[in-house]
Amino acid sequence: MQIIPFPTRAEWPALLARPVQSSAQIEQVVAPILQQVRSQGDKALIELAARFDKVDLAQTGLAVSPDELAAAESQLSDDLKAAIRQAYQNIRTFHEAQKQAVEKIETMPGVTCWRRSVGIEKVGIYIPGGTAPLFSTVLMLGVPAQLAGCRQIVLCSPSNHPAIYFAASLVGVTHVFRIGGAQAVAAMAYGTQSVPQVYKIFGPGNQYVTAAKMLVAKEGVAIDMPAGPSEVAIYADDTAVPSFVAADLLSQAEHGADSQVLLVSTSKKLVSTVNLVLDTQMSRLPRRDLAARAIDNSKAILVDTADEAIDLLNAYAAEHLILSVADAETVAERIVNAGSIFLGNYTPESAGDYASGTNHTLPTNGFARAYSGVSLDSFVKKITVQNITPEGLQVLGPVVEAMAEAESLEAHKRAVSLRLAALAEQVTD
Amino acid sequence: MQIIPFPTRAEWPALLARPVQSSAQIEQVVAPILQQVRSQGDKALIELAARFDKVDLAQTGLAVSPDELAAAESQLSDDLKAAIRQAYQNIRTFHEAQKQAVEKIETMPGVTCWRRSVGIEKVGIYIPGGTAPLFSTVLMLGVPAQLAGCRQIVLCSPSNHPAIYFAASLVGVTHVFRIGGAQAVAAMAYGTQSVPQVYKIFGPGNQYVTAAKMLVAKEGVAIDMPAGPSEVAIYADDTAVPSFVAADLLSQAEHGADSQVLLVSTSKKLVSTVNLVLDTQMSRLPRRDLAARAIDNSKAILVDTADEAIDLLNAYAAEHLILSVADAETVAERIVNAGSIFLGNYTPESAGDYASGTNHTLPTNGFARAYSGVSLDSFVKKITVQNITPEGLQVLGPVVEAMAEAESLEAHKRAVSLRLAALAEQVTD
Repeated sequence: MQIIPFPTRAEWPALLARPVQSSAQIEQVVAPILQQVRSQGDKALIELAARFDKVDLAQTGLAVSPDELAAAESQLSDDLKAAIRQAYQNIRTFHEAQKQAVEKIETMPGVTCWRRSVGIEKVGIYIPGGTAPLFSTVLMLGVPAQLAGCRQIVLCSPSNHPAIYFAASLVGVTHVFRIGGAQAVAAMAYGTQSVPQVYKIFGPGNQYVTAAKMLVAKEGVAIDMPAGPSEVAIYADDTAVPSFVAADLLSQAEHGADSQVLLVSTSKKLVSTVNLVLDTQMSRLPRRDLAARAIDNSKAILVDTADEAIDLLNAYAAEHLILSVADAETVAERIVNAGSIFLGNYTPESAGDYASGTNHTLPTNGFARAYSGVSLDSFVKKITVQNITPEGLQVLGPVVEAMAEAESLEAHKRAVSLRLAALAEQVTD
Repeated sequence: MQIIPFPTRAEWPALLARPVQSSAQIEQVVAPILQQVRSQGDKALIELAARFDKVDLAQTGLAVSPDELAAAESQLSDDLKAAIRQAYQNIRTFHEAQKQAVEKIETMPGVTCWRRSVGIEKVGIYIPGGTAPLFSTVLMLGVPAQLAGCRQIVLCSPSNHPAIYFAASLVGVTHVFRIGGAQAVAAMAYGTQSVPQVYKIFGPGNQYVTAAKMLVAKEGVAIDMPAGPSEVAIYADDTAVPSFVAADLLSQAEHGADSQVLLVSTSKKLVSTVNLVLDTQMSRLPRRDLAARAIDNSKAILVDTADEAIDLLNAYAAEHLILSVADAETVAERIVNAGSIFLGNYTPESAGDYASGTNHTLPTNGFARAYSGVSLDSFVKKITVQNITPEGLQVLGPVVEAMAEAESLEAHKRAVSLRLAALAEQVTD
């Protein structure tokens, strides 16, 4: 990787910029696909699968049957099933702790307000096909959906890998369809004869899937978050183990040539050792060609001080941030922009990717400046409720009347005045 | 309003459909404005203000000075200031209770995960001009921003109403600009010489402002939520006071001709009485022409049973839902889609609009099916953190290895294997 020694702060924006992806061209391809699914439903799904995926969905059916889902379990090794069950349990433990008890707040005497968490009734999960069958993502999205009490959990994937089906059964997915690409997003956004319409769509995908999600979001279907290539930043000092750092950089780089990998350090020695070890480790990887292209585009930045490192990391706003430094937990307290943080030498990113319990659906592309990763909150709505007693309205009412009048919203004021007058009359009676 | 007696469930979708707003034409107007602000900065803001608002910002300056903000207080009556301060306090009390303590969760022995809430560093608030100076919205967006610890809170408004400036001072807004329209959204999204770039933009506005927010959201700038015309649904039985119900319907209707107003009841008598009272009350309103147009488009739906009423209300997913029924709190427990709920005869919507403490920025247009209203959560990111001890990695590691291998992500596996091997060596030493 390219080493950038001690850049000035003025140079940071250019160094930290992500590659700009133009979406206009892809949207032009995707928009007619959405339109076709919207108007023709299942027929469009069958035709598009034949055209793009060379798959005959008319023969297999769009839906995966309960029998096929149940059969997946017998096709997996006991070791893998045990691992998936353990990951499921850890993710469940962490997300279950995110449940909040209802707390009634009396803001003034007789004015009580609270929030109810209610699961989104219908959610959709997209799991891409391709070389890696992302059953881990089924767990990451399905577990909080299950905990939230979502009534319909629809999963679309062009992959029929048994681990995906096994994970889907564990998390209580209610519908599974063999549909991929932008058309799967359209099917869940609009509904078809077979696919139920959902209110929120989650999950990763290629640029067509991403464009489809952004387009349906503009129409009011909620999505998890905007997406970009996956990325890791590692802040390492001389307490870091160079071979661990190199391995973590590569575990990000193997995702694809567009993966973003950044190493930040105050130690010249650490950076040059990591760079050496990196080449050796990379040469032994099955996905070495992919990883090499990502590493070629990536940077190791040397900075003067820990303060500068922290500022730089906050400016970058990494999806994954590994802090392999002496006082990792203290440093973490000063990080304001990141998706998920991994502390010390024995917390590799892959632990969080699969099984520590945290969610792996995280904001990329600097979106961590404003977005959180997926959590239980992503699958619920918080409905506010308020209850005002006659006595409460007597103290709160004049406040509302004064403000409504100043905003020239007379009917807002009268809705209160009328009630106060009725209460005054009751007292007089 | 139009009375719809006992429609079948098949008729519901058409009855509950919101007017479809075509955004394509408006986007064609807004996109060049965004582009102009992006490329020309302040110069564009001055030119666009002259063109659209007939205002000379070159003369007044873009920024409102601290002196001008401070002077606002003396221009308001003591009553109004006291009301604004009380509303501020109530909103603060309710939103402060939304803070969550950090809870460290040990998902497995030696595997500790938690979430840190961090305020979004830079947020923007848009407050429209027009007849109603929405200082209440300054409180609703500013209070949670202040509680979240957002470092920069930028407010853009074409209105220079002193109550807006007074509220801005209360909530600790750091920058105020005299900018309105789509160009204000662009200024905050991209930053200009004068206006700091923000990471998330909040606030209501006309269809140009809304289109601008949707366009910058597609580019990765976060926004509060998609917007549509404001709406109220009221579920009333014979325990409801008809004049209160009519007043609440009108307080929604006065927002504009496109306001959505819906009355649901099992009682024919209640509906016809409300309809009578409505006309009398409306004739006395200053905004009666606006309200009349909204009421003309609105519906009272008669249903057979309470169960049917609840199903209908859940299908509609109202922004504001008033339950003027005998067992309001029990009914509220069965509502799964709504922005904010108001219980009983003495909880008018206008209480929540101004001062009960709940937030008035709520999902319209059926978005309550998937979106929550604005809360403290809207102004923070939750960063997950994990810390794994060597002993923790020894139990978690094999789980990660098995899953990474099954997903064909070898480098993910090796990042763990390498560490487990190092730990095994240490034991041998």
